Amino acid sequence: MKKAIFLILPFFISINILSQTITKNSLANYDSLAKEIVKTALVEGQGYKWLEQLCEIGPRLSGSAGYEDALNWAKKTFRQIGVDSVYLQECMVPHWVRGGIEEAILLDQHGIPYKQIAITALGGSDGTNGKEIREKIVMFDSFDDLKARPQDAEGNIVFFNNKFDQSLLNTFAGYSKGVQYRVFGAIEAAKAGAKAVLIRSVSSSNDNVPHTGVMRYIDSVKHIPAAAIGVRDANYLEQLFKEGKNLQLSLNLSCENLPDTEGWNIIAEIRGSELPNEIVAFGGHFDSWDVGCGAHDDGAPCIQTMEVLSLVRRMNITPKRTLRCVLFANEENGLRGAIKYGQIADSLKEFHLAAIESDRGGFTPRGFTTNADSSVMAKLQTWLPVLNNAQIEWIKNGGTGGDVAQIKNAKALFGYVPDSQRYMDFHHSANDVFEGVNPREMELGSAAITILSLLLSEEGL
Amino acid sequence: MKKAIFLILPFFISINILSQTITKNSLANYDSLAKEIVKTALVEGQGYKWLEQLCEIGPRLSGSAGYEDALNWAKKTFRQIGVDSVYLQECMVPHWVRGGIEEAILLDQHGIPYKQIAITALGGSDGTNGKEIREKIVMFDSFDDLKARPQDAEGNIVFFNNKFDQSLLNTFAGYSKGVQYRVFGAIEAAKAGAKAVLIRSVSSSNDNVPHTGVMRYIDSVKHIPAAAIGVRDANYLEQLFKEGKNLQLSLNLSCENLPDTEGWNIIAEIRGSELPNEIVAFGGHFDSWDVGCGAHDDGAPCIQTMEVLSLVRRMNITPKRTLRCVLFANEENGLRGAIKYGQIADSLKEFHLAAIESDRGGFTPRGFTTNADSSVMAKLQTWLPVLNNAQIEWIKNGGTGGDVAQIKNAKALFGYVPDSQRYMDFHHSANDVFEGVNPREMELGSAAITILSLLLSEEGL
Repeated sequence: MKKAIFLILPFFISINILSQTITKNSLANYDSLAKEIVKTALVEGQGYKWLEQLCEIGPRLSGSAGYEDALNWAKKTFRQIGVDSVYLQECMVPHWVRGGIEEAILLDQHGIPYKQIAITALGGSDGTNGKEIREKIVMFDSFDDLKARPQDAEGNIVFFNNKFDQSLLNTFAGYSKGVQYRVFGAIEAAKAGAKAVLIRSVSSSNDNVPHTGVMRYIDSVKHIPAAAIGVRDANYLEQLFKEGKNLQLSLNLSCENLPDTEGWNIIAEIRGSELPNEIVAFGGHFDSWDVGCGAHDDGAPCIQTMEVLSLVRRMNITPKRTLRCVLFANEENGLRGAIKYGQIADSLKEFHLAAIESDRGGFTPRGFTTNADSSVMAKLQTWLPVLNNAQIEWIKNGGTGGDVAQIKNAKALFGYVPDSQRYMDFHHSANDVFEGVNPREMELGSAAITILSLLLSEEGL
Repeated sequence: MKKAIFLILPFFISINILSQTITKNSLANYDSLAKEIVKTALVEGQGYKWLEQLCEIGPRLSGSAGYEDALNWAKKTFRQIGVDSVYLQECMVPHWVRGGIEEAILLDQHGIPYKQIAITALGGSDGTNGKEIREKIVMFDSFDDLKARPQDAEGNIVFFNNKFDQSLLNTFAGYSKGVQYRVFGAIEAAKAGAKAVLIRSVSSSNDNVPHTGVMRYIDSVKHIPAAAIGVRDANYLEQLFKEGKNLQLSLNLSCENLPDTEGWNIIAEIRGSELPNEIVAFGGHFDSWDVGCGAHDDGAPCIQTMEVLSLVRRMNITPKRTLRCVLFANEENGLRGAIKYGQIADSLKEFHLAAIESDRGGFTPRGFTTNADSSVMAKLQTWLPVLNNAQIEWIKNGGTGGDVAQIKNAKALFGYVPDSQRYMDFHHSANDVFEGVNPREMELGSAAITILSLLLSEEGL
């Protein structure tokens, strides 16, 4: 195993007498503590102020200067909170850059340009190497459609027009259904001999802002450029195809894959007063895509977990177990940070009592998902009235997030679940900016994660 | 009792064979029906399309041409739905007009203007009669503060700077705490001899868009002009006062109260197939303030209740009891429509099994409040798994809304409760426009109210 570089930065010597030890074994006491946490989060709005600062830095793509700037901001902010320690974990991350050129121009059958199409290169896509790709564009509804008539794709630009399934209650379910075209579209189109691939943005919105996200190549199939187009332009193209138009597209992309480079998880802790070797972890991925500023994905959620430590300090609470905030590197296009975190935790034989992931946006709270078994679940349900102070309505079994899933020995993993209805309007797009986050919705999430973290820390599982 | 004018407009003769009678007495059957309702609402988005049309008409203040235009739009839309009847109920409503002039200019102690303050006259306020009021402006935190030093108000302009209580989980609770300054501020300030009153907008936002709303006079106290100022300008003023500045304000308002005029409730029904005399009613107030277009207050909620009838027709459902949509006149500054509706229902001895009010914005669903007694409540709780298909998490006892409260003999009243966190950012302000409503959040509300209405219609209470 590559040796991790640990930067142990002890810098804070508390001058407070840590006076507030939680009176345990009484849900009534937790209830009044929870009310105080909600009130403090809503009134002081510390996390929301931090989100504005973080968004002013700009996007935080793995390997970018923006990620390093954000890392320095987080380090400074953790110090201001007054945590007991802050350290980094280095890992190698993919280094993809968009470059300055992204152009898709629709041409009629005579080659006369008549509309610029809103596109964004998919993360990991090769560019067009300084040359225009100009070919016929052919629409396919699905992979099945492509498999039924691969000859229509050969030598052409494939356009997958798979529509977001609005019928599903949870927009993550709609996203899961549609995202295969973004991830595997270039492979399937190239298998049929296509020169490039465009996908309809995987988005619940009805605007024309294109949504990026990771795509994949495999060695055995030619690597062709891939981009997403805005939903309104996808509708426009669909209409032209319905009218039987014969269309060409001129595509220029300057994006490219560079050699892997350094990335870092950043970790901050408040040491437990009684069981310091038992860890209650919480976090999100600190990287974002390079459009917008990753306000919902995953800026606000990361900051919610930073705010757990801040609320504990501001409210002068002494936790029994160690509270650890982990901001993971490189979730979007590699998961390398979480893998590294899991490896180090394993090699150090760290015991995670629990880990909570926040990676579903800064929207109003609804519940927590968990992988807890039935006996743990029974205990968790008794905490629900306390969590309800932050609008948490339920704790259910369900997926908890790709980052915390790399922690192998945790007694329970949790995913914080805010309302999903608006998330896929913002996700991976230039829409995902500070102004799209509501301070009260975000702060209730901070409160919800803080309350659960303290229940875990004080009560165990 | 003033005789109500009923315009009975039978226009629709169904050519459908009304084939879909709900298979009752099985929650599993209701569950699959509920899923179908949610899917249809989300995918077809009919209500959201209507909201765009309604917002294009503009605001719908009682007594305005906009209200009549909106009424005609509703009549046309109900006909398109294919309801069994549409009719109007006339009532007299207050007729307040804003006019074209709203100006507040801050002056230094030498009378030199240096900042324009963002204001909106409060609904029902007198204007300044074509003359400027130019007086010293004095800030008070509360009515108690004013009572402690009334001499500071005498002859001056009073500014109540009561801040929105962000600490409360439900923003309606914060609103209820703060709204007294808007409603009674002019009375209290005038008692102390003030020439005019300004209030800090009753808003959870941090922007500078002022929020209007109803204010009151009493005969025994001088009527002075009243306006709300934007939150940022309120902060600005507060800072100047903290610095000890001696400030004047020049105020010009052209608003005025005209004689009462005509208003109308509009009612549409699908007659029950088995118990037509038992009514399940649902609705909201069709009037709005004259700033923005009342998209959340109460456009989207009204349309959610229109969509109940539409979904029932689109899905070819034959309800057992009569489903009635009521769009009430004049909730904002009089409640005259709801009072009239209650009087007529009483005089006709109509039996309302239940009535559901939607007047909390078009946000993501959370629950229903009801005045139901404990035996009815026990039955309602068994419906919760079905309602959960539309993200309804709970049914609780609680206030149900001012309009349905005028129905005296209903077995149970309900209030539809979407998430409140963003509501007071929009409420009564120019922010309350179409773009502020998310289609999925709104449509889930339509589905939730439709599911509850059908459970009531088929199962009774």
